[in-house]
Parts: sequence; structure tokens; C-alpha cells
Amino acid sequence: MRQMALVGFLQAQNCTQLASSWRHPESRNDSMSKGYYQRIAQVLEEGKFDLGFFDDRLAMPDMYGGDHAHTVQHGIRCVKMDPLTVLTVMGMATERLGLGATCSTTYFNPFDLARRFQTLDLMTDGRAAWNVVTSFNDGEAMNMGHDRHVAHDLRYDMADEFLEIVLGHWDAWEDGAIVQDKTTGLFAHPEKVHRLDYKGKFFKSRGPFTVPRSAQGHPVVIQAGASGRGTRFAARWAELVFTAYHDLESGKKSYAALKEAIAQKGRDPSKVKLTNLVWTVAAETKSEAEDKWALADSLVNETDALSLLAEVMNYDLSKKGLDDPFTDAELAELSGGQGHIDVVVRVTGRKNPTVRDFMEVTRRGHARDPFIGGPKEIADRMEQWFVEGACDGFVISATHVPGTYEEFVKFVVPELQRRGLFRKEYTGSTLREHLGLDRPENGAWRRYAG
Amino acid sequence: MRQMALVGFLQAQNCTQLASSWRHPESRNDSMSKGYYQRIAQVLEEGKFDLGFFDDRLAMPDMYGGDHAHTVQHGIRCVKMDPLTVLTVMGMATERLGLGATCSTTYFNPFDLARRFQTLDLMTDGRAAWNVVTSFNDGEAMNMGHDRHVAHDLRYDMADEFLEIVLGHWDAWEDGAIVQDKTTGLFAHPEKVHRLDYKGKFFKSRGPFTVPRSAQGHPVVIQAGASGRGTRFAARWAELVFTAYHDLESGKKSYAALKEAIAQKGRDPSKVKLTNLVWTVAAETKSEAEDKWALADSLVNETDALSLLAEVMNYDLSKKGLDDPFTDAELAELSGGQGHIDVVVRVTGRKNPTVRDFMEVTRRGHARDPFIGGPKEIADRMEQWFVEGACDGFVISATHVPGTYEEFVKFVVPELQRRGLFRKEYTGSTLREHLGLDRPENGAWRRYAG
Repeated sequence: MRQMALVGFLQAQNCTQLASSWRHPESRNDSMSKGYYQRIAQVLEEGKFDLGFFDDRLAMPDMYGGDHAHTVQHGIRCVKMDPLTVLTVMGMATERLGLGATCSTTYFNPFDLARRFQTLDLMTDGRAAWNVVTSFNDGEAMNMGHDRHVAHDLRYDMADEFLEIVLGHWDAWEDGAIVQDKTTGLFAHPEKVHRLDYKGKFFKSRGPFTVPRSAQGHPVVIQAGASGRGTRFAARWAELVFTAYHDLESGKKSYAALKEAIAQKGRDPSKVKLTNLVWTVAAETKSEAEDKWALADSLVNETDALSLLAEVMNYDLSKKGLDDPFTDAELAELSGGQGHIDVVVRVTGRKNPTVRDFMEVTRRGHARDPFIGGPKEIADRMEQWFVEGACDGFVISATHVPGTYEEFVKFVVPELQRRGLFRKEYTGSTLREHLGLDRPENGAWRRYAG
Repeated sequence: MRQMALVGFLQAQNCTQLASSWRHPESRNDSMSKGYYQRIAQVLEEGKFDLGFFDDRLAMPDMYGGDHAHTVQHGIRCVKMDPLTVLTVMGMATERLGLGATCSTTYFNPFDLARRFQTLDLMTDGRAAWNVVTSFNDGEAMNMGHDRHVAHDLRYDMADEFLEIVLGHWDAWEDGAIVQDKTTGLFAHPEKVHRLDYKGKFFKSRGPFTVPRSAQGHPVVIQAGASGRGTRFAARWAELVFTAYHDLESGKKSYAALKEAIAQKGRDPSKVKLTNLVWTVAAETKSEAEDKWALADSLVNETDALSLLAEVMNYDLSKKGLDDPFTDAELAELSGGQGHIDVVVRVTGRKNPTVRDFMEVTRRGHARDPFIGGPKEIADRMEQWFVEGACDGFVISATHVPGTYEEFVKFVVPELQRRGLFRKEYTGSTLREHLGLDRPENGAWRRYAG
């Protein structure tokens, strides 16, 4: 029977994806310590999750009003640590859990990034994954020494080259290159270690790369772009895709379209897993879960919502009234997150949506349309999405940690297992084995280039 | 009584600093796994070392003959993993050991670097250190997307700005900024979190930085530059200096000169620790140690030596006979490691040394002038250097791992403790406490600027 993939959506910061989460009475207060992350990792592993993964942002939100005072005051993701370091910490407290982190092709160096992730893959015996993003936010640009962010399609053209370098380096050492014979003195076969000599339009890197392949070959490549260009990028490169489909019907259409786009690239669509973002609020009974949800949602304040929306739109919303429509000129200026604009226009049916439209459709700062209930209610909805072909699994966001995952593992996982939708034990040891992905042959990705 | 600092000099690669070490019969074969590094870390902690630290190089040696075939064949540091990731792995297997990694100001981004190290400092409860280097090697430049390396003094001018950004960001959050009051909703005092707004000649970064201060304030700053410009840099910035003095007499002079340079900057010289690089070969008796040394040194081959020398000189030595002197024009071309050239000219007394002079003086590829013996012989030499004022402690290189450290901890550490020269137990929990450094006040470093 086809098995669901489960992913924990984590943040190396003072709150979950929900900025208000730190105020939750059951949230742990030690989010800047190893114990906090190791506990989350152990809960996910107890629940046989495929992986936990970190988002990233190289700046705190300060687009709203052009200042960070409100961000710090309300704790709106003002702390943001290095996700790969925290991921390594989690890897040392677990044996099987996959470990993913977001890293931007806009601001990092491909040789360095390839080395960081491949090192993690070796240190965790083949459990690493890289979530490829391009960056769209001026705060990040300015922290990283640039004046402003890079335009949308250009970012993806750069990202294509970036991927060619990273995957090229990850293939530098053939399997079986290393001999390590102390007697003959042969460390590795020279003809099995290759220099990349890459010279692109945006990037170059020579090699040879200095980190051999791992138990799973190299880290799993994750992608989440929702725009047209982002989807084409995913079809070419991604092995695991994070989607954020808003409802079952449009989800089924988008899922089918992306699988088709993957097939058109000559790739096997069953070897690319699409997991959809979902909030879960689980308890023993439906009414207990509803109480929990009411508590969690009551903690959001309007500043959280406006600040996070301003950040993702890369636009200072304090300049506009909540009910003023964006003019055509303003919409054209909104370079950040084209995917968001498309959704808001489609859902509201308005060519010129207002700030409030963006707040309501995106539900930034809030948990959007959570699956709330006891084991049956939540498993029913997950099963429907999975069986009717809107996803291959789920990326689960938390209203608070570790509570959301503890409750999901306690109440929902056993029900999914009982229905035969989810593994009872890990059957392999690498992340690729959990996800049912093949170990990549050297250079396989080159077949899908261009 | 004044206490010695002890540092383990580690490499996240297939061998120790000694390329031949992987051929040592007692070397572990699993240098690409966590167990290898965690064992080393635990041995150092058992020996109450102040810290273990990793060097780094963003390329494998391939200057010699312009090719990497020999590097891979002989295992000449051809594997080089990300040191910060491996350091995090070691931090999760220890409780007290300090954790240092080298990271280049030439190729990394100061915001990202500040975030990585400060995150590690939080995850290890105040045990992190950054060894600041500038990079001089064309292989690294080409891997990182440049055509060739940056000239020597310019690299240090860039590094000064880099440090101003990193230390500025590390001070962004004042101590006591975080309140985290779930009831009032105040996460942190907005007036205690500062934007850096740095605009230099080479670098800029805005902020506010997204990682608060740690138990020890921020990571310890290490530096090891031996040139005149490197020494001035160390006097301004370093809290721990790695020196490589060749003999006791010149060591005493250089030690006194560097302490004086620190004082002239207005800093307290007793709060900057100078630790000297040393190889140790320890056993129960002197004759056993001599046998061990004979075995270790017999494993070096000439290719190791020439390849590593070519790399550090950034010059293809296959173009010259071993006994051909470098012409003045060639010496002027040798942009890599001015410190090395100065030493070779001084030691040989020749203005135009030969390749063999460089090999013999630098002992690249070999362990240079090791301290060999039983507990008494090694402790005597260490005590002499320490008491007569040539160093505040030692950076210990290994002929093989974990053996060198196991033997040092078993035979030498108890003798140093018996003499009252080295701690019997850790008295603090942070690296600064081990080293006797003060927790830095916010902005203290600004007093020594310029």
C-alpha cells in the first residue's frame, strides 16, 4: 500500500511559524538551547516522521513601519539562528529522522553550501536534505551586504546554475573511489575523483570537491516555489516538494499538473514526493481539540499579522489603510512572492485586492484552515487528501512546540498506522529510504538539465 | 599558580595535520563519520583540554603539478569537510570542552558567519571559538568563484572590516534584552536590540542581528597570523593566539613582543592567551616514545611534503629542482604565507633559499621538532616554555588520532597536574572561563579599534 510521507515544519527561532506561539502556555521557554530542538527531534522520530525541516530567513521582519521595535517587542520571529547548526544538534539526538534545512541560492556560495550539506549527510549517515529557496526580501539583502533583493525570474536563472554546481560537486567522488589501503598507500583512485570546472553566467566553481558521497549518495533536494517559474524549477530539480494547496479541489489539479510537469522533464513522477502544508490540532476528542484551537488562535495579535505580511510582500503595509485596494502600479511593485499575489487575486476574484484581502486569504500570522479533531477527524481529512491525489504526504506546522507534535504522535499517528497509510517502523536508515527515493547514480541529474 | 592552556589541533579530513597519518597502523579508518570526531572530543575532555579546534581549507592541494591525482592517490588532505558542522557533532558528545573552527574572512559573509558561530555558542552553552584566517591559495579562490586569491595586506584590511561587522552583530542584543513574559506579551525590550548599519569600504551589513548573546557573551576570537600585518591584527582582535615559534629563545622574544603590542593597543596582555604549536609523542618511557616517533615519521613520503609545501606557498614546485634557489623575482611572486618566507630566510641565512630549504625549515608534511618522551621529558619541556615566558599554553598536533591525544592524556596530563601547571577539573563551564578570559561587555572591543 502507498505510504504517506510526514514532515515536521520547524523554525530555529523564538516561536513556531506562528509568531504568537511563544505566548502559548504550553510552549517551552528555552528556544535558544539544544534541549528544545533535541526534544522536538525525538518526538518526530518516535512518530516515525520522514524528516523535520527548518525554514530560514536572513533578517528579522522590519518592513512594517521600517523598524524592528515592534518585532522585538512582540517576539515576531526576531530570533533566527543558523538552521544547519541546529539541525546537526537534532541529528546527534536521533538515529533515523531525516534532517532538512533551507538555504538560499541568492546569498550563499555553492561550493560552501555543497560542503556544509554533504558534511551533515556524512555525519548523520545519510539523513540530510536541502530546501532550495531564492530570497526576495530587502532586509535579507541588506544584512548580506547587498542594496536590495534580486528580481524574481533572474533569481531562478541564478538558482539553476547554483544547482548545477552543487549537484556537480556532490558527484565529484564516484562511489567506490575510496580504497584507504594502509599497506599499499592508495587512499583513493585518482580517476574516480573529478574536477567540475563550472563556468556559468552567474557562478563559477572549479573543484575537485572535497567531500565524498554519503550512505544515501547526497542530500535530498527539496523545493517549494509556487509561482510558474518556481514550479518549472521544482519539476527539474526537486525530489521532495512542499506545496501549500488551499483546498482539496484546487490541490488535486495542482498536484496532477506538477506530476505531469515532472514527467515531461523525463523524470519518474512517483520518485518526486509532493507534501502539502497543514496545521493540525489533535486531541483525544474533537471538542478538546476545538478548545485547544480556540486558545492557540486567541494568542495572535494584529501586529503579528501585518508585520509578517509586510515582510513576505516586501512592502511597508503601514503606508496603506486596511481596506485600500492596491493599485495596478503598486501590484507591479510587489516583487516578493508572486505566488502569494496570484492566490489572493484568484481567491478574492479581485484584480486589486486590499491589505485586508491579503491578510484574510494568506492568514499570515494565523494558522490557516487547520485540521482539528480527535484521531478519526484528522486521519479522515489526511486520508482524503492522500487517497484522492492531492498530495503524497504532509508538512505539519505547529501552533506550539513540542505540544503540537506530541499530540499528533500520540493521537493521529497510531490511527494512520492502523489504516495502513503510514509506516509502523522505519524500514531503512537513510532519508531516501524513508521517502522511497532511489539512491542517485553519479550524474543522473544531468539527464534532466536545461 | 598560573595555569597552562591546552588546545587540540584538529582537522575535519581524512588525516591529521600530517598527511601520512591515515597510513598509521593505529589510525581509525572512519574519518567521515561522527564516531571518529566524538571519540577525539571525549578524549580531550577527559584530559580537561581548554578546546579542540579545526583548521580549514576550501580546496584540496593541487598546486603541485597543477593536478589533484597525486593528492587523491596518497590521501594528502583530499577530504575536507565543513568544520563547523563537525564541531557541532563534537559539542553534542561533550559538556565542557571548548570548540573552535577556522573560517575565512576572504570568502565568507560576515552576517552569515556571525550567525553560525553565535548559534553554535548558544547550542553548546558558551563553548564556541572562531579562528580568524585570511585565505591565500588560488585553489580556494577558484572553488569559491574567484579567479585568484587576494593580495596579503589587502586581505587584512578586509578582515578588519569583517571583524567590526561580526563583533558588532554579536553585540546587537544587550544582556538582559529578553524578557519573554507570556502574560504581558513582552518578548524583549526594543531599546536593547540594535541595528549595526555598517558601511565599510569592502563590506556592509545592516542588521539587526538575529541571534542573542550566549552564556559567555560571544565566541572567543582566535588568530594565528605570523607576518607583521598578521601580528598587528592579532594585537587588536585576538583573545587567543596560535603561535608557531621554532625554538625557545626566539619564542620568548616573539612572545614578549606580541604581549607588548597588545598592551600598546590598550588591552590587558594577561587577557590574551598565546599558545604555541607543538607535536607530542608520549609513552610510558622515553624509549617507547622514540620507537613510536620513528614509526610515525617513517610514514611520510616526499610527495606529501612537496604537495603541501606547494599549496602553502601557492606556487607549483614541480617547476623547480629541489636544489635550485628561488630568484628574487620568484620570491616576490610568492604571495602565499609571507610568514613562512621570513622564517626560512632567517633560519637558513640565505636571501635566496631553495625548495629543499623550504622543505627542511618548514618541515611541511612532517611533524617538526616534536616533544618526545615519557611523562617527565615532555612535561619538562612544556614547563620550560611556559615558565620562561615563551607561551601561555600549547596547541597540540597529532601524528595520528585518537592515539596521540589518548597517550598525551594518559601520560602527560597527570604529570602537568601533579606539578600544579594544569587544572585537575574544569572550574567553569564556558570556554572563556577555562581560558581565564572575562565575559566581554557589550561593545568593549570598540575601545581598541583603529
